[in-house]
Amino acid sequence: MTQQRIGGIEAGGTKFVCALGHPSDGIRVRTTIPTTTPDETFRAVISFFEANGGVDQLGVASFGPLVLDRQDPDFGRVAKTPKAGWTGADIIGTLKSALGCAVSLDTDVNGSGLAEATLGAGRGLDTVAYITVGTGVGGGLIVNGRPLHGLNHPEMGHILLRKQAADSDFAGVCPFHGHCVEGLVSGPAILARLGHPLSEAEPDAPIYDLIAHYLGEFCATLSLIAAPQRIILGGGVMSNASLYPGIRRSFSTTLADYLQAPAVRDTNAYIVPPALGDNAGVIGAMLLAMNAG
Amino acid sequence: MTQQRIGGIEAGGTKFVCALGHPSDGIRVRTTIPTTTPDETFRAVISFFEANGGVDQLGVASFGPLVLDRQDPDFGRVAKTPKAGWTGADIIGTLKSALGCAVSLDTDVNGSGLAEATLGAGRGLDTVAYITVGTGVGGGLIVNGRPLHGLNHPEMGHILLRKQAADSDFAGVCPFHGHCVEGLVSGPAILARLGHPLSEAEPDAPIYDLIAHYLGEFCATLSLIAAPQRIILGGGVMSNASLYPGIRRSFSTTLADYLQAPAVRDTNAYIVPPALGDNAGVIGAMLLAMNAG
Repeated sequence: MTQQRIGGIEAGGTKFVCALGHPSDGIRVRTTIPTTTPDETFRAVISFFEANGGVDQLGVASFGPLVLDRQDPDFGRVAKTPKAGWTGADIIGTLKSALGCAVSLDTDVNGSGLAEATLGAGRGLDTVAYITVGTGVGGGLIVNGRPLHGLNHPEMGHILLRKQAADSDFAGVCPFHGHCVEGLVSGPAILARLGHPLSEAEPDAPIYDLIAHYLGEFCATLSLIAAPQRIILGGGVMSNASLYPGIRRSFSTTLADYLQAPAVRDTNAYIVPPALGDNAGVIGAMLLAMNAG
Repeated sequence: MTQQRIGGIEAGGTKFVCALGHPSDGIRVRTTIPTTTPDETFRAVISFFEANGGVDQLGVASFGPLVLDRQDPDFGRVAKTPKAGWTGADIIGTLKSALGCAVSLDTDVNGSGLAEATLGAGRGLDTVAYITVGTGVGGGLIVNGRPLHGLNHPEMGHILLRKQAADSDFAGVCPFHGHCVEGLVSGPAILARLGHPLSEAEPDAPIYDLIAHYLGEFCATLSLIAAPQRIILGGGVMSNASLYPGIRRSFSTTLADYLQAPAVRDTNAYIVPPALGDNAGVIGAMLLAMNAG
């Protein structure tokens, strides 16, 4: 049996990271391509894989929103996005026809979540939630080694939270919902309140408690609805490690002792940072490739 | 190959419904046993199955909370419950050793949800959410024909909602969380506000809008987190069919046009009543039996 050539693309709004190799054995070759127009970007991506001997199975973990419902005539494309030129870009169709390989597409957050659940902070568990808190807030549920897809893909960052009294003057930055999770705790939401990023705040600034409070309530809702065995919190905002203790406290306070499972009570093991660092995206893309039909 | 004898038990707080037959082909024989002490109740259940030729695979859809984590030493038992005598009752162990059959246990809501997803209002879909609004509020996610289990089982009825201004004087009836979904919209919550059940309210009473508003927001959160392809709302409170239009409106308003999938926009097909009526519980228990190892 010939070894399958596995490729992965972490498709971001500013850059595409492309790699060939194996998710567990390591990356053989990789490159970074700036995200410009779809045509130009895909051309460079295709050249990379062609120049490195081609690819049999390709996974793409992409910025979105994406159309992932196979019944939808736009399956495999970017949905309506503010990113100029990218609405309707045909990710699966373009790569499949140019490279003659199977292509599996999922969201960037599901890609990183799949990597963390399989090889990182969720290794060994059946049901893992992965949340990223950065420019936006997104989340994925990985169940038995696959991202959960029902209707398209989850959009967890847009659930509504109870506004805190200390935050009553802040309208939130989400153009759709104002004070959804993304509107209240994303990087831009923090910037809108402080005028600078969280990393430049004083260590005892009240913003830490506020963000931790909201994220703890969000984790409690997630836990009650989907019952993951662990919640992994990644993304730029979460690089402020001092947020974790407050999030865990807020999570426990919100649940109010209701969930009795020992795993939930040990919040240090239940709400954790990612383990794979910057490689999660492209490793996740390669794991998606291995699911490609 | 000998035909497997499939049994199902819908184990409720007031009665146990036991049946032999097949989930699709019909119930061959059934009985109803009042729920008294665990010893007495199990004795009657065991006699029923023995008197009818025994059972090879048995499914139990039970009131809870239940311990469903296989790693937990109490796996298969009732967890801490206010129902006198039932804390710690060993459902799987007792039935398995007495009847010598494989036993599969899940929550009553997951049982009914499995039946509705497989043979009822969610038939043909991969990912279905089933919610019951009655004495309590519970929910299950059925993914590819199986109830989703990560950490034990979901407890969706306990997520916190934003309290409505018109409802500000009402503290909610949940002893753990006050104004979680269950604390705000369950039968007892409605009774606490009105002094009578919803079915006795005037057709234009403001309580309908209030309950519909909360349930619509709950459905929106569920949809954003778990992305089910359909949400089935059952239980005693939902027998007031006039609630559905308001729930669908509140769902759409809460999402604020964010989810673009056509399935979500057609709310009449997205948020629906159950289709199997009172048989859902015991049919679900028989479906669970077919998954028993």
